[in-house]
Amino acid sequence: MNTPDYTIQYRNSDLGQTGLFFYNSAPDLAALYPSESVAATGRFFVTDTAVAALPCMKDFISRFTLSGDTGCRNKDLLLVITAGETYKTIDTVLRIAKTALEHNLGRKSLFVAIGGGVVSDLTAFAASIFKRGAGLEIVPTTLLAMADAAVGGKTGCDFGAYKNMLGTFYPARRIHFYPAFLRTLPEGEYRSGLAEALKTGLLFNAGLFDLFKAGKKKLFENESAMIRACVMAKAKIVEEDVTEEGPRMLLNFGHTFAHALESVVGLGKVSHGDAVAWGMGRALDLSVRLGLCAPAYRDEVYAVLAAYGWETGPVHPALAAQITDMPAVLIEAMKKDKKNSSEKIRVILQKGLSDTVIQEVAEDRIRVVLAGG
Amino acid sequence: MNTPDYTIQYRNSDLGQTGLFFYNSAPDLAALYPSESVAATGRFFVTDTAVAALPCMKDFISRFTLSGDTGCRNKDLLLVITAGETYKTIDTVLRIAKTALEHNLGRKSLFVAIGGGVVSDLTAFAASIFKRGAGLEIVPTTLLAMADAAVGGKTGCDFGAYKNMLGTFYPARRIHFYPAFLRTLPEGEYRSGLAEALKTGLLFNAGLFDLFKAGKKKLFENESAMIRACVMAKAKIVEEDVTEEGPRMLLNFGHTFAHALESVVGLGKVSHGDAVAWGMGRALDLSVRLGLCAPAYRDEVYAVLAAYGWETGPVHPALAAQITDMPAVLIEAMKKDKKNSSEKIRVILQKGLSDTVIQEVAEDRIRVVLAGG
Repeated sequence: MNTPDYTIQYRNSDLGQTGLFFYNSAPDLAALYPSESVAATGRFFVTDTAVAALPCMKDFISRFTLSGDTGCRNKDLLLVITAGETYKTIDTVLRIAKTALEHNLGRKSLFVAIGGGVVSDLTAFAASIFKRGAGLEIVPTTLLAMADAAVGGKTGCDFGAYKNMLGTFYPARRIHFYPAFLRTLPEGEYRSGLAEALKTGLLFNAGLFDLFKAGKKKLFENESAMIRACVMAKAKIVEEDVTEEGPRMLLNFGHTFAHALESVVGLGKVSHGDAVAWGMGRALDLSVRLGLCAPAYRDEVYAVLAAYGWETGPVHPALAAQITDMPAVLIEAMKKDKKNSSEKIRVILQKGLSDTVIQEVAEDRIRVVLAGG
Repeated sequence: MNTPDYTIQYRNSDLGQTGLFFYNSAPDLAALYPSESVAATGRFFVTDTAVAALPCMKDFISRFTLSGDTGCRNKDLLLVITAGETYKTIDTVLRIAKTALEHNLGRKSLFVAIGGGVVSDLTAFAASIFKRGAGLEIVPTTLLAMADAAVGGKTGCDFGAYKNMLGTFYPARRIHFYPAFLRTLPEGEYRSGLAEALKTGLLFNAGLFDLFKAGKKKLFENESAMIRACVMAKAKIVEEDVTEEGPRMLLNFGHTFAHALESVVGLGKVSHGDAVAWGMGRALDLSVRLGLCAPAYRDEVYAVLAAYGWETGPVHPALAAQITDMPAVLIEAMKKDKKNSSEKIRVILQKGLSDTVIQEVAEDRIRVVLAGG
């Protein structure tokens, strides 16, 4: 194994370290996990049907003779789960654990998640509860997973109609970044990841926001730099506060609105990134209405949101028009959000670029930025 | 809240601290958790049908108007699960989490487990994965839970036919010990806890072993001292090694055999303590046969086991006689044990009292101590 490009050291924590590896080459899982290097403790690769079908995965997948969705070869085990946010359930987590159990994996075995945020969140959750914790590595294949989900140790699954209600803090030991994976992504999924990258820019990196303002072409030319900027910004935050007692909460910018939207429209009906992008617009509108931030900054962000195809208005198009009092429904969903500990709703707001605050806001103030017409 | 009698400080860990509180009085949950002291974040009490029916619980339970198995009062919530090891499943864990979610509990809410090892393991597991970790306190009501299960942060549930296959490390913030609860226990359950106490004596506390040798009457007269000795021995071990990388593994003395027995006869068919007692006898017989320990020490322990009603022979009475090659079946179950990371089976052995070693042993050596006739 090479030396990592960076190692995340979780302060005041025994969650260990996470080595970050950036590759300019085309993804080659067969080379990253050579079949001759299998430890006696076993490796367990988990991916989904979409990733398993990619041409760049062919050599690696062909190593296994699949029986149903599971394949073995020596001490290596592969499970291919069905792709999609609707499968981000506790049932899938338990399926991963059950497969590991049936193949006699132990707590010293290595779970390897190869996929987007759904695959990595589920696999990491399963690894964290399997015999009280097995080894974990992640190969993120989407922009969302690279820029956000894979880094920082949050694991989880949806439960009932609510996002990520169950989960643990359990960082991977190593994360392998191949930006070339992104050439395999549908446009909608790519855009979903861009929203988290834009969030990073607004919160921590004015240069990254400038890159967004410079337009899509310029941004894509600098894709690897964008990913690294996101990963490093997140690495710095989680080093200080992996369990989200303090500064890590800033990363929820846009997310109180986004999670409510995703719950109300039904999980999987709107991409997480599109929801977050809309949520950031709502958070900035709220910031303006609370007198925290100048309208000019909000409008500058609105312009970027619109340029990348995101909704800037109070009513997201995915919201069914027939529901009476949609703001009340969204606010009810916000109250179920796990970051809320009291009657008021905690929202991440901005006074301006790179100037972020956490505030508990009364329902009626939030209602205003959700009401159309 | 009073000052704890002792505070467990988990070294090299961010799992926090556990305050230990010992009470000489009769258990009074209504006084321990006064209804007027409810925080805005809410409390969630989880107990089982057996504990909820105890006279000493009457005042506390009557606070709630139960609807089915759930009761609310202001920000307090109560769930009464069905008593029994057969309910130590992931389904029960998810039921606890679902109840918390439906009542809008947050990550700052406090889960309180009131019961034996099943209730505390399940509730602690649910607390650890609920919104990535809620607050946790435990009121153990059985000797097994007081002497072992409640202390040290292991959470979990059975999965498939195997014990504690899923779980986390998640210590309670406070544990409240009322030895007077033990007057409510059936004799079989009391004996189950005694096995873990005897284990503590053999591993760490020669005085405690002497107390066992002095006979039941003497032991029961010193019950509170016995419990404190067990709790403090365990506290010291988990302070050094909460996640079981090193010395904590010694606490598995007898457990490799016990877990295999429990799996093979079916979970809940033999008490955990009876299985551990039998397993300690097997481990000592193996120690003798490997030349580690003198037969006299094994026989001294056999005499104590027999005096308390435990099996000392190679074939536990709960094992169905009709199965061909029972040793092979047990060994197969041992290989699924989460502590085993290789082909050999890891067993905790003793060279003598307070002199314990961990060794990987080949199957054929283990087979000998499981073969009857």
